[in-house]
Amino acid sequence: MEKLYPHTGNAYIIGITGAPGAGKSTLTDKLTRHLRRKGLTVGIIAVDPTSPFTGGAILGDRVRMSELTMDSGVFIRSMATRGYLGGLAQATGNAVKVLDASGKDVVLIETVGVGQDEVDIIRIADTVCLVLVPGLGDVIQSMKAGVMEIADIYAINKADRQGADQLFAEVTHRVSQDAQIREQLWEPPVLKTISTEDEGITALADALSRHRDHLKNTGGFSDKRRERIHKETLQMIHYELFRRIESHLAANGRFDNMVESIMNHEGNPYAIIRQVLDEYLHMPRKTRN
Amino acid sequence: MEKLYPHTGNAYIIGITGAPGAGKSTLTDKLTRHLRRKGLTVGIIAVDPTSPFTGGAILGDRVRMSELTMDSGVFIRSMATRGYLGGLAQATGNAVKVLDASGKDVVLIETVGVGQDEVDIIRIADTVCLVLVPGLGDVIQSMKAGVMEIADIYAINKADRQGADQLFAEVTHRVSQDAQIREQLWEPPVLKTISTEDEGITALADALSRHRDHLKNTGGFSDKRRERIHKETLQMIHYELFRRIESHLAANGRFDNMVESIMNHEGNPYAIIRQVLDEYLHMPRKTRN
Repeated sequence: MEKLYPHTGNAYIIGITGAPGAGKSTLTDKLTRHLRRKGLTVGIIAVDPTSPFTGGAILGDRVRMSELTMDSGVFIRSMATRGYLGGLAQATGNAVKVLDASGKDVVLIETVGVGQDEVDIIRIADTVCLVLVPGLGDVIQSMKAGVMEIADIYAINKADRQGADQLFAEVTHRVSQDAQIREQLWEPPVLKTISTEDEGITALADALSRHRDHLKNTGGFSDKRRERIHKETLQMIHYELFRRIESHLAANGRFDNMVESIMNHEGNPYAIIRQVLDEYLHMPRKTRN
Repeated sequence: MEKLYPHTGNAYIIGITGAPGAGKSTLTDKLTRHLRRKGLTVGIIAVDPTSPFTGGAILGDRVRMSELTMDSGVFIRSMATRGYLGGLAQATGNAVKVLDASGKDVVLIETVGVGQDEVDIIRIADTVCLVLVPGLGDVIQSMKAGVMEIADIYAINKADRQGADQLFAEVTHRVSQDAQIREQLWEPPVLKTISTEDEGITALADALSRHRDHLKNTGGFSDKRRERIHKETLQMIHYELFRRIESHLAANGRFDNMVESIMNHEGNPYAIIRQVLDEYLHMPRKTRN
């Protein structure tokens, strides 16, 4: 990763998120074909919901994209493993960097937007497209409040279904209200798409271009890059620190002994935590640098 | 928390999870009334889906339980804040300990079981009841694969709805297959409930009692407690470690300078991470203890 790093920073990173069944895979597929026709190379990172117990991913959707895998201008990577505490966001960040460094013009991250993990993942993107569909119910829509707040473009997919017009009107209303309240420079466009029929894909690609231009013109790219570096670096420090301490504690069954002492009411976790931090953590003097 | 700690370990902790709209709140409500009639005191921790951006929770369901709040044998706490990296699981764990130490016989944790966060939360429980309902669709059910693997009891709620018999048959089939494959000592019972009509609540309470006896007789309580202590202690070390490093790095804008040096291509994050680890981490010699 360190050797790759100087070659990163050129790809345009697009996040595509939405509830399961919203048609993200087909939309990603069609958008990729569109970008390819424009002569752009594309990397796709598909983050699948995973069982934290078996590590098994639901990869059925990937099969549909198999045609794209014959195209040397497209690289598809499925992320299925879910590590401990933020590991998936970090792994996805690394995959983005590899595709970026390999020279892909666009990197698409496709993920199910439900939990905090997914929000962390999607924050890697320069532009986030939230895919909504009619009929999934208010409950699911409301769960996505967190994701709605980071969406730059809304695609109302399966727009030929009943309820699409109403959903379109509701989202448009909310988006314009939010944009006013927060005095946003960018009001997210709301588009109708029917990904299975290839409808609305050109409009989506245009909206992506416009958002990209907006980021360029307002310094947004730089701000996003800074935020990303801040977050990623902090996360890596954190992860690496913990990994080393955890493995050191596990050696010789030391941590098991600590747990046993708590079990036997000899120790308490808070005292043990203080002890561990005192031992492992050395705070350098604060410098003026 | 440290002063409370010696008073914890007596409550029976039940997790109630399932998709939004499965009727968990009503089930929790009815189960609580049942337990109260048996003379048991109950603590309820309701973990609501939250926006990571606004911190706003969807608390509408709580209103229905307001009658219970008049009962001094019941304490209800809504958890809405979502912290960074496992913060919600930790906060929930603390709330459980407070209710446990306060002498509640039973602590019910009610949570929407979708993401990794929720799985982490529900793992705090001694017994996990997964609430399923007909008609929510295969997509949502399959997302819950992770949660299904930790369920000790299944409640098919809204059992008067169309599709309930089929769902009951499917879950029963899968549960018995899983129990065989994994040679489980406990085969999770599958129950039908109609929480709004108070139907099946006694059977659910009986199943909970049986699982509790099972845990007692097989040493499961002790195993679960050990696993919980292991996980919680590591998580607290993790959290505290991060908190201290982050605030130390933030002082005097030191971390901001590091980020700027990466932005300007003077530094790279990997070299900076090594530098930070060298400075902050002190590995004690491995002892034989």
